[in-house]
Amino acid sequence: MKALIFDLDGTLVDSVYAHTLAWQRVLAGFGLPSPACVIHRRIGLSGELLVKAVAREHHRSLRMADVKQLEKKHKALLHKLAPVSPPLPGAKEILAHLHKARIPHGIATSGKRSELKRSMDALALSPSAVVIDGDMVSEVKPEPEIFLLCQQQLQVEAAQCLVVGDAVWDVHAARRAGILSVGLLTGGTSAQELYNAGAMRVFRDAAELLSEIDELGVKGGGPGG
Amino acid sequence: MKALIFDLDGTLVDSVYAHTLAWQRVLAGFGLPSPACVIHRRIGLSGELLVKAVAREHHRSLRMADVKQLEKKHKALLHKLAPVSPPLPGAKEILAHLHKARIPHGIATSGKRSELKRSMDALALSPSAVVIDGDMVSEVKPEPEIFLLCQQQLQVEAAQCLVVGDAVWDVHAARRAGILSVGLLTGGTSAQELYNAGAMRVFRDAAELLSEIDELGVKGGGPGG
Repeated sequence: MKALIFDLDGTLVDSVYAHTLAWQRVLAGFGLPSPACVIHRRIGLSGELLVKAVAREHHRSLRMADVKQLEKKHKALLHKLAPVSPPLPGAKEILAHLHKARIPHGIATSGKRSELKRSMDALALSPSAVVIDGDMVSEVKPEPEIFLLCQQQLQVEAAQCLVVGDAVWDVHAARRAGILSVGLLTGGTSAQELYNAGAMRVFRDAAELLSEIDELGVKGGGPGG
Repeated sequence: MKALIFDLDGTLVDSVYAHTLAWQRVLAGFGLPSPACVIHRRIGLSGELLVKAVAREHHRSLRMADVKQLEKKHKALLHKLAPVSPPLPGAKEILAHLHKARIPHGIATSGKRSELKRSMDALALSPSAVVIDGDMVSEVKPEPEIFLLCQQQLQVEAAQCLVVGDAVWDVHAARRAGILSVGLLTGGTSAQELYNAGAMRVFRDAAELLSEIDELGVKGGGPGG
């Protein structure tokens, strides 16, 4: 393994539960009430796929204008419900370690660029880090495009990359991209769900991953790495 | 099976995610930051056990006065974050069915009596329903007391009761009480976690349970039941 590609929400920043409640309230306000657990398991998909999945359960189909409107309301409510997006245990430390060890790494998220700033600030991300967001691709997770673009920018073969994510959508998108993946429990998805999706290993959080990073065969990319 | 005993939060009302965020914010304000996923999996325990578990991870111990103060703040923030506690799919319907079929049933929750009113209103619970809350016992889940008290008030033997819950704590408390249990996914705990804890079966929600209730051997208790 020569490079790591991280999901953002639920993997590096603790935002999945706030996303869940914000989507639930916005959808209920639109006549699409849904249990929080149903929304929770769809965080990490694009807003469009999430909204469509809930609409489908109500036997409704939505126009693209509705989806855009719901996404806008979700963003506003999210910032109100969770003004900050705190880094998860080990998130800043693993990014700092990879930077110092010159191991190529990037972040690949379905979120839109305009929604990323507060997470980037919370993580104190180095300006050199590769960040792929939903605005840079035509289809987000569970499609593989977002991870493939990150992998290309890191200039490391897919077979030598490792995806780190908290949702089954990360694991599915990684498999479609031909990239192995490990799961973290920090998004609230269980270990068994992540293993069923195809994760090679599951760690409690980025801190546990960092403490056992050598077991994943992640080697330094720089001189003497 | 002659009687059903329901957990409340996450089983009948959709409150687990709001509880999670409220506890996270209150604990962070007390110098005990914790990932939402860690708190999520401890909803259903008493506030005291939840708070102590998080404090332990910070190598801190709390005085009982601190616990009381945190519980008070949690309750206030919960009402702010989630002014209503909507019934989960099938919750009202299964309670109405049991009432109509004269099948003894009750609710047994770790929550305090003062916190229950809005959930009871949302469920349109019949005044005859048995409700056991955290103020009525000396130890809440995962201790068995709460389920045993409910079972005694229903006047049905433990072996002929069935607990319905969404958290591993419900399943554990039921086992300690000698009562079989089934799990619901509506609290965001996965099927495998509920099966590992000892649930006999896992349903998506109370609506799915109701649609297959005859397979659980639940028979009407009244004349001709």
